[in-house]
Amino acid sequence: MHDIGFIRDLALVMLVAGATTVLFQRLRLPVLPGYILAGVVIGPHTPGVLVADPRTIADISNLGVVLLMFTLGLEFSVRKLRQVGGSLLLVTVFEVGFMLWVGYQLGLLFGWGGRNALFLGAIMALSSTMVATRTLTENGLRQWPFARLVVGMLVAEDMLTIVLLTLLTAIAISGTVQTIAAFSLVGHLGLFVVAGMIVGLLLLPRLVDYVARLERDETLLVSTLGICFGASLLAAWLGFSVALGAFLAGAVVAEARSAPRVVHLVEPLRDMFAALFFVAIGLKIDPAQLAHHVWPAVLIALAVMIGKSVVCSAGMFFIGHDVRTSLRTGLCMAQIGEFSFVIATLGLTLGAVSDFIYPIAVAVALICMLASPYLLRSADLLAHVAARVVPRPLRLLLTSYSGWVENLRPVDENAVLAAMFRRLLWHIAINIALVVTLFVIGAYINAHNAAWFEHWGLSRDMRHSLIWACALFLSLPLLIAVYRKAEALGMLLAELGIRERFAGAYTQAIRQILAKLIPLTTLIVLAFLVSALGSAILPPRGVALSLVGACVLLAIVLWRGFVKVHARLQAALRETLDKPSPADHKQS
Amino acid sequence: MHDIGFIRDLALVMLVAGATTVLFQRLRLPVLPGYILAGVVIGPHTPGVLVADPRTIADISNLGVVLLMFTLGLEFSVRKLRQVGGSLLLVTVFEVGFMLWVGYQLGLLFGWGGRNALFLGAIMALSSTMVATRTLTENGLRQWPFARLVVGMLVAEDMLTIVLLTLLTAIAISGTVQTIAAFSLVGHLGLFVVAGMIVGLLLLPRLVDYVARLERDETLLVSTLGICFGASLLAAWLGFSVALGAFLAGAVVAEARSAPRVVHLVEPLRDMFAALFFVAIGLKIDPAQLAHHVWPAVLIALAVMIGKSVVCSAGMFFIGHDVRTSLRTGLCMAQIGEFSFVIATLGLTLGAVSDFIYPIAVAVALICMLASPYLLRSADLLAHVAARVVPRPLRLLLTSYSGWVENLRPVDENAVLAAMFRRLLWHIAINIALVVTLFVIGAYINAHNAAWFEHWGLSRDMRHSLIWACALFLSLPLLIAVYRKAEALGMLLAELGIRERFAGAYTQAIRQILAKLIPLTTLIVLAFLVSALGSAILPPRGVALSLVGACVLLAIVLWRGFVKVHARLQAALRETLDKPSPADHKQS
Repeated sequence: MHDIGFIRDLALVMLVAGATTVLFQRLRLPVLPGYILAGVVIGPHTPGVLVADPRTIADISNLGVVLLMFTLGLEFSVRKLRQVGGSLLLVTVFEVGFMLWVGYQLGLLFGWGGRNALFLGAIMALSSTMVATRTLTENGLRQWPFARLVVGMLVAEDMLTIVLLTLLTAIAISGTVQTIAAFSLVGHLGLFVVAGMIVGLLLLPRLVDYVARLERDETLLVSTLGICFGASLLAAWLGFSVALGAFLAGAVVAEARSAPRVVHLVEPLRDMFAALFFVAIGLKIDPAQLAHHVWPAVLIALAVMIGKSVVCSAGMFFIGHDVRTSLRTGLCMAQIGEFSFVIATLGLTLGAVSDFIYPIAVAVALICMLASPYLLRSADLLAHVAARVVPRPLRLLLTSYSGWVENLRPVDENAVLAAMFRRLLWHIAINIALVVTLFVIGAYINAHNAAWFEHWGLSRDMRHSLIWACALFLSLPLLIAVYRKAEALGMLLAELGIRERFAGAYTQAIRQILAKLIPLTTLIVLAFLVSALGSAILPPRGVALSLVGACVLLAIVLWRGFVKVHARLQAALRETLDKPSPADHKQS
Repeated sequence: MHDIGFIRDLALVMLVAGATTVLFQRLRLPVLPGYILAGVVIGPHTPGVLVADPRTIADISNLGVVLLMFTLGLEFSVRKLRQVGGSLLLVTVFEVGFMLWVGYQLGLLFGWGGRNALFLGAIMALSSTMVATRTLTENGLRQWPFARLVVGMLVAEDMLTIVLLTLLTAIAISGTVQTIAAFSLVGHLGLFVVAGMIVGLLLLPRLVDYVARLERDETLLVSTLGICFGASLLAAWLGFSVALGAFLAGAVVAEARSAPRVVHLVEPLRDMFAALFFVAIGLKIDPAQLAHHVWPAVLIALAVMIGKSVVCSAGMFFIGHDVRTSLRTGLCMAQIGEFSFVIATLGLTLGAVSDFIYPIAVAVALICMLASPYLLRSADLLAHVAARVVPRPLRLLLTSYSGWVENLRPVDENAVLAAMFRRLLWHIAINIALVVTLFVIGAYINAHNAAWFEHWGLSRDMRHSLIWACALFLSLPLLIAVYRKAEALGMLLAELGIRERFAGAYTQAIRQILAKLIPLTTLIVLAFLVSALGSAILPPRGVALSLVGACVLLAIVLWRGFVKVHARLQAALRETLDKPSPADHKQS
């Protein structure tokens, strides 16, 4: 068999990974840093070169990231994503922002220049989902209340990671990034995520359950992997990272009834490629270079551990958790891992960072990973010490703060109304996002398939008219839905906002005006939005006006039909999300 | 992320494989040919090039073969290998030899030249384990009595495959192969298999069970993969195929108590890489070239299907199975598959065969695979028709033949003695093989590490003396064991062979002479063998003689110790093999 090189390298890596996992497991040390160290030992920079082909290593790493993100997605279903509370999201955004800033300042302090400093910030900002969930599992804490908080923050960070990855790519390619370009990027990303999620939720769980009913593990596995890699391919093709596609595919497939079976089948693959991923990271490291940068690495590791744990703990306490829970959550988040490597690799391959950033990132991650179980175990001790050291008045103040936050939570009638209000706003936002997506797709088709249209003898104007009409027609059910939700919102606001004691006799009149005003405003905003979005594909004014007229007519005639179509799609989506939860599938 | 090419190709392959598996499963067609066809469709030779990197494809294929062979090994444990009866082995050898001859003749008939013809023979000779076991499983026949026969023949073929692969490599490299070289090759192979099996059986099942007790799926999986790839690496390093190493590792690990758990964990990997393996085969195919060779392919496919089913059925009937069972076994073996691709790839990469052999092999395999389920289903019909068509006298003859074969089986006392006899011979053979292995290893160390010895200031003679002494010393327990078994064999033979009615009064004397003669002869043969084997590392005569004298002295002094060591090793081996069978782990 020719080209034995790849298989020899792989065999060596698997052999070493196998030995490491047993050894570190036996010594009760975390296994992931063990993989990295094993990689360093057999790497091309160590005397007695064993693995030497950089291409193989890159291939392996990429595959590892895709499968890792897919299984992370499978763990964090869309349902769980929705359960991440707004306050938790806020703490995460603050924490990630703070660590970005700390990393940036540290980088400047070391005199590494702006771009290196920026990447260092990103490397320091993101906790390791793999390490944190493993630490929880290995210490038997997976079912504790604070573990839910940790998982929630990790999910929120995963979402932020994707934003960061996209922004950093743009910065690395263009040198700097304009605010508008950044917003456009984040906007596109948001559209991709929302549209991908909704279309995915409508199709994929049903598809997976259908395949699962064929009752063949092989078929289920291969088709699920097809979905995972297909989504990665789509994401890469649209200019996002393969990791994003795989993560979204996992989160969507997790809503299938047969998701536990899928998890069960994919886990061995994840474990194999995770081992390869971490060994491959070690392979890239030159120990000599590592020794050269040992002090910055130690400093940065301390900054990560102290910064993350303090900010996360404080944030948790701030949003109303007790001291012990806050400390545990914070200490569990105090490390960096796989995303840091992805970001460092990104920086290196795009030529945006200096060579020494990668080994430093690995060294910092190694230190944090090794410290991780001890940090978590020290939480109770810390809480105990804190209870003794903190002076009594401050402790009283903190306790009363907790009580006060507890009382802030909305209750009874107000809570129900607030929930309705929030749901209506969400529905409107999602429908508008879908309309925007339709027009963006239309513009994309217009820009990339001009030749194809000309082949069919369609002039530029006719092409524009056709695409615009299609986008508008497909948007109709969504637009009608937005109008109806806005109407409901108007009524709700009128009921809530205009109390009789203020408006007196005019109450009813003002309420009616408000109830009409809101959907009307929404319609006007939508009209502007559609014409702005369609600017690239806007047909000549006459055609556009007549098309709008036709659509309005169509909307009135087919109103009930469109409402029914939309209701059916929404019901299908809700059915997927609200069905009884599949048996809890924990990471083993 | 750079180098997105590999992941894109892989994503495309997985996507197509996923769609194919669902579609073919739904249409109730066998999935494996579906993978190949899907590969042809997305291959670089089809308009609308999708997958284009040949290196990626080769990498994927190699990984697929290793994991495939490992899981095949896991299915066919050493225990099952021992259960393959001598008669079944004989039928398989005859069948493979016959198909080799048919293929060779066909190749000459087509005017393809000797070497192409030889490879064609090898391609046609080996049934597909994947296809046959799948056909059995998919038709719910896995537990039927004839399925045991099929699995037995497949195991025997797998062993022959390894011999064929090694021989073909030698032929392809050297052009021709001398009889002596072939024997040397097969001898080396046999030594590797036997020594690998025994050392493996002593170490690996215990290691795997130890890891399994850590109760972490990830650790068990990664370390098992380490064993699998490690064995492949060792085999490749010694000049055998990676497939052989993986197969042996699987067969040995299958003896661990936790083998069912390992199977469960490795199955998803096998399924993923099997899909990749078969799609990758399709990728290499140019449909245009396929069309060019359609008639040879059809002819060869017919020859495979008719030849294999007729010869296997006849062989099965000949060793005493009824017509229906024989037909079913024969028809289940009537296809070629993964090994044919491995052989064709081998021929291509070594430059030993023409380009058109590979697509023909694939076309033949496709036809046979698609026909496979229908062939098996036709078995009962065929048996029915045969019962009607065959004239009555012939039928009577056949029935009486079956009865006669049934009566041939040894019974009662004779059977017990025969079993003892066979066991003693086996023990002697295995111990001699181990002695030979020790000396071969010694010669290998002598040939490859001369510089290292010189570094330590050892002259050539001293090096020889040292290695020879080590080999001899390590062989002592084995040699003593051989002597003791030979003694037992002598007594058994004396008891059995010299009956009182022939020898009369001399019976006891002749028996005693025979009982002493046999171990003595064995010792002399062993002495010759050791000095012949050690010829490369034989020290000067004086040293050699004194070493032998020292060893004889040592043997006499430490006789009981050596016997104990050997008994302990043998007990460990027997314990591994004879422990209660782990829960039956079938292919799902």
